[in-house]
Amino acid sequence: MNVLVVGANGKIGKQLVHLLRGSSEHTVKAMVRKEEQAEAFAKLGVEVSVTSLEDRVEDIAQAARGCHAIVFTAGSGRHTGFDKTLLIDLDGAVKTVEAAEMVGIKRFIMVSAIQAHKRESWNEKMVPYYVAKYYADKILEQSELTYTIIRPGRLVDEPGIGKITTAENIKGGSIPREDLAKTILHSLTEENTFYRSFDLITGDIPLADALKLI
Amino acid sequence: MNVLVVGANGKIGKQLVHLLRGSSEHTVKAMVRKEEQAEAFAKLGVEVSVTSLEDRVEDIAQAARGCHAIVFTAGSGRHTGFDKTLLIDLDGAVKTVEAAEMVGIKRFIMVSAIQAHKRESWNEKMVPYYVAKYYADKILEQSELTYTIIRPGRLVDEPGIGKITTAENIKGGSIPREDLAKTILHSLTEENTFYRSFDLITGDIPLADALKLI
Repeated sequence: MNVLVVGANGKIGKQLVHLLRGSSEHTVKAMVRKEEQAEAFAKLGVEVSVTSLEDRVEDIAQAARGCHAIVFTAGSGRHTGFDKTLLIDLDGAVKTVEAAEMVGIKRFIMVSAIQAHKRESWNEKMVPYYVAKYYADKILEQSELTYTIIRPGRLVDEPGIGKITTAENIKGGSIPREDLAKTILHSLTEENTFYRSFDLITGDIPLADALKLI
Repeated sequence: MNVLVVGANGKIGKQLVHLLRGSSEHTVKAMVRKEEQAEAFAKLGVEVSVTSLEDRVEDIAQAARGCHAIVFTAGSGRHTGFDKTLLIDLDGAVKTVEAAEMVGIKRFIMVSAIQAHKRESWNEKMVPYYVAKYYADKILEQSELTYTIIRPGRLVDEPGIGKITTAENIKGGSIPREDLAKTILHSLTEENTFYRSFDLITGDIPLADALKLI
């Protein structure tokens, strides 16, 4: 599959692009917001599109054309205001869903956040962020796409261990970004993850096996 | 009908409570956020519930119990951050929809904003606000409720003239809050507005007639 990574310049995005480049099954296209971010990918020989999630659905669709799957790893980040939470984490995500529908791409993986589907579990300080993720996920689930919504725990930069726990509801925990990226990679073609949404943390089951048990 | 006005202390809410008090068909219950807001309503003999839209769905449902219709007129306002846009205009609105479903109230009127359903029309400075309204409206439309979504133009405090224009798409315009409140009042029982969403501005057709033409 040719996979569009939305938010390719982010920490998760970069790891996922790296994994996709190294895989024999897939090719990758990076979607980034700024020209200067594009250069680094171009130098690696990675196809890249400079498109902002604040652009029109048609522009995102243009970036996605020719791809067979989309992974949404973008996030407005900690250092922007909640206006960007609305524009990127919510509307940017849903515009990407609409772009997929527009060009007929069925496979869509969303990186969400642990317990985003359950208001009672939301960390008090991060409620506005969870609101955005909650509705973006909800609209993807209601779409016609072959979705997988991965809701990772606290992301850490430690090396991956390749073992995870997945479930409908996990109270808390963390996971290395590398293992999240690997989970995304495996999920792309793992039919057991199609039309599924799940929490994800570091665990004790080898990643590929864990995804068969969801 | 006994009508719950959510956001009763706002400018639209106050006018609507006033109209409902004066009607022979309806009674009114005011939902407000603060105790001190409640007192003014209690003095008028209006039933009132002190419930925040940041409370749980169950709490909003408790406020709505015994009512036959809900009108959502609340808004986070110009002077709060976009965190409140997420919490009130989006999640607060959807929690009110869920509360209606929880207690079996079918009739629901949402006060939205002109062209909120069309990204291309959004005023550049207000895009984050429109994002919140867009998704709240979308989720109400997908619910099982007998909804009406009224999308008024720029709200002004001039006295109403009792004449309006409604349409699926109106480029711009304004409307006195008094006429918006009257439009809500008439819509409550006007079956022609059931399951409909429309833009609303001041116009030249008497209000009750205009609602029959939608």
